[in-house]
Amino acid sequence: MTGRQLHLNAFLMSSGHHEAAWRLPESDPYADVDVQHWIRLAQIAERGKLDSLFLADGPALWQGIEFRPAGQLEPTILLTILAAATSRIGLIATASTTYNEPYNLARRFASLDHVSGGRAGWNIVTTAGRDAARNFGLGDRPDHLDRYRRATEFVEVSRKLWDSWDDDARLADKARGRYIDPAKVHAIGHRGDYYKVEGALNVPRPPQGHPLLVQAGSSHDGKDFAARYADAVFTAQQTIADAQQFYADLKARAAALGRDPAAVKILPGIVPILGSTEAEAQRKAQELEDLIVPEFGLGQLSEILEVPVARLVLDEQLPDDIPDSASIEGAQSRSSLIVNLARRERLTVRQLIGRLGGGRGHWTFIGTPEQTADVLQEWFDNGAADGFNVMGAALPSGLENFVDQVVPILRERGLFRTEYEGTTLREHYGLARPPSRYETSARTA
Amino acid sequence: MTGRQLHLNAFLMSSGHHEAAWRLPESDPYADVDVQHWIRLAQIAERGKLDSLFLADGPALWQGIEFRPAGQLEPTILLTILAAATSRIGLIATASTTYNEPYNLARRFASLDHVSGGRAGWNIVTTAGRDAARNFGLGDRPDHLDRYRRATEFVEVSRKLWDSWDDDARLADKARGRYIDPAKVHAIGHRGDYYKVEGALNVPRPPQGHPLLVQAGSSHDGKDFAARYADAVFTAQQTIADAQQFYADLKARAAALGRDPAAVKILPGIVPILGSTEAEAQRKAQELEDLIVPEFGLGQLSEILEVPVARLVLDEQLPDDIPDSASIEGAQSRSSLIVNLARRERLTVRQLIGRLGGGRGHWTFIGTPEQTADVLQEWFDNGAADGFNVMGAALPSGLENFVDQVVPILRERGLFRTEYEGTTLREHYGLARPPSRYETSARTA
Repeated sequence: MTGRQLHLNAFLMSSGHHEAAWRLPESDPYADVDVQHWIRLAQIAERGKLDSLFLADGPALWQGIEFRPAGQLEPTILLTILAAATSRIGLIATASTTYNEPYNLARRFASLDHVSGGRAGWNIVTTAGRDAARNFGLGDRPDHLDRYRRATEFVEVSRKLWDSWDDDARLADKARGRYIDPAKVHAIGHRGDYYKVEGALNVPRPPQGHPLLVQAGSSHDGKDFAARYADAVFTAQQTIADAQQFYADLKARAAALGRDPAAVKILPGIVPILGSTEAEAQRKAQELEDLIVPEFGLGQLSEILEVPVARLVLDEQLPDDIPDSASIEGAQSRSSLIVNLARRERLTVRQLIGRLGGGRGHWTFIGTPEQTADVLQEWFDNGAADGFNVMGAALPSGLENFVDQVVPILRERGLFRTEYEGTTLREHYGLARPPSRYETSARTA
Repeated sequence: MTGRQLHLNAFLMSSGHHEAAWRLPESDPYADVDVQHWIRLAQIAERGKLDSLFLADGPALWQGIEFRPAGQLEPTILLTILAAATSRIGLIATASTTYNEPYNLARRFASLDHVSGGRAGWNIVTTAGRDAARNFGLGDRPDHLDRYRRATEFVEVSRKLWDSWDDDARLADKARGRYIDPAKVHAIGHRGDYYKVEGALNVPRPPQGHPLLVQAGSSHDGKDFAARYADAVFTAQQTIADAQQFYADLKARAAALGRDPAAVKILPGIVPILGSTEAEAQRKAQELEDLIVPEFGLGQLSEILEVPVARLVLDEQLPDDIPDSASIEGAQSRSSLIVNLARRERLTVRQLIGRLGGGRGHWTFIGTPEQTADVLQEWFDNGAADGFNVMGAALPSGLENFVDQVVPILRERGLFRTEYEGTTLREHYGLARPPSRYETSARTA
């Protein structure tokens, strides 16, 4: 390997990240639950030697199901099918700390890590939506701070559970009939504010020690959490200046906590819309924008900004008095990003919906493969990114074009691998296997 | 098909159901988390055209990890890997109604059903163990009746969630930009004693409508539950007389609830120990029994019977005053079966441990393939079974020998399929796809 390398993650989304992609003539509108579609995406990404696949998730039906594919297969199940169809690429599933039990979830990720040979990652989310709360017996979601406190304890419990078997706990001594050395399997005896978990886990320590931990919230609470726990951070950034600020901020927070800032990989999302000429790329973007149903975009904006639909007028700018992010209990950082984008560029609501249609607040870049490689390198070389979360506007074409047209240019420039060098997801990201807290203390004792 | 046919389910267990199987020279002691081992088992069972694979489960570390393989990959993950390695065989995962949330679990089974093309089954358990309770913040397990009340509501919620999308909810109308007809996706608005779930599910209706529902508790509460909900019942029976009584009782309960008794398939477990002669089979059984560690068996007996280990003396019979099953809050039917077996055959504790080592209370049959086929047919023809839960004492050999030596005899007798006739698990069991409650009411409205 020659110097610092990009990390590329394929963020998958049924027929594509653009909300209207399913309406394109070539799109399979039933892709959301079509296993063959997902396997095809995974194999394209692995052919490109990308670091990982990623699935977003929430335990509730999306808003606006009238207007876009709404089936969301549970991500650890879907990624297990994709594990069987691939051999090296990482597999990152989103799962909520608000609506799961740590024993069950830590076990599921340990199991995915075992069956995939060390390729599991967990994107830790606290789940902002009210709809999810109503599927779990709650009248409303817990507030932002409470969700992050719970997430912190949830991750602590999970890490204890993954460490609860020493790597060498199994004797497998057939002659003596001793399978495990019981001194090397540890009850965790966790007693916290939210959880009481006795342990140990009923799965041996995962091949990676801990699955890769990913975090995607960019609020104040989210950044603190990421600085403490995340191996990789997915983030939505609209400009290189914003991305540089976020990057420097998060690396400094990690350093302040005694972590190596280089061990926290920051990956902004990019929705690349590619054409052999800039004009062709623009035509493709316009084709997608023309397919947007404004009624859907209004509903989405209303939900994220926590403003009634009636106050959003398509051919006017956003109302002046929409709440600032600090008062928002849901997706704080995303709402702030959207309001800033609209104000900075003086967009009407209709224009804003067009801009958001491609990636829900993520950065859309429209251009040739060469221009796309240039802008990725610019961000990478200038303290804005360690890599990117690649979000095909339409799928599979958006991923296939990126892998076939942009990745080779990055490779020529020495910025991206030509072959996988390791076998685990942590190895792809250049991260060490974490030691077990229990094994260490036993050794020093 | 010519007349009534047997149903055969392969109950898988890492290196085998016999607790000492991992000590055999040919056994892989790390089979518990070795994906290639599990894939091999699945492919043997599918080669034999068995109806389904089955995994037991509980969210806690087993007792006695010192003495046997203790890794338990989460079953929906493991079965998803096996779904990718097979194409027709059914996939039945155990999951607890006491330690899961219905929205998450119903979604996971719907997802498994989608990715496997309609091959998912759910073995519904209430989880008797105290250890599990302590992994979920409880000081002790909920009592037996409370667990079954919760299970009943859990299954009701799950069935509503699976029905929450009409089969034809998706319009996928690209020209009009309408993806779903919102009138065909239903909030379930469940408000019960244990759960409040608004819905709808975020996964389209499963290919099977509902995954196959399986129940394995044989207590009074368990039989009532099975009669109401189960498509298949797994049960431990030591004698044909007991099995006939259980069979008649459960079919009568189902009929009393207005169900077709033929639509509730009853499958006793059998641990077949095969040899080309009876003497060879006996030698194999003895080889396994000689590998038992009595200390482990004592711990298991103590746990199930809820009697302190100190009161169990290896070369004496069970104490006279051990609690009868009605006072047991854990595994009522299993403890009753074991006490009856010991008393009926006047077994010492050591002999009892030897008898239980093979299948934890399931029926062990030692003999030639022909003798095994005879006894299966005897049970099948005489109102004791609709099929069997085949439990290899050692794996893969126990399954491979059954498939290669016993299944062909059953086939010659016209008792078992030579090819799969359907593609879904329900079709293998000869069961109809359940209609959706919401779709029906919409049509009659």
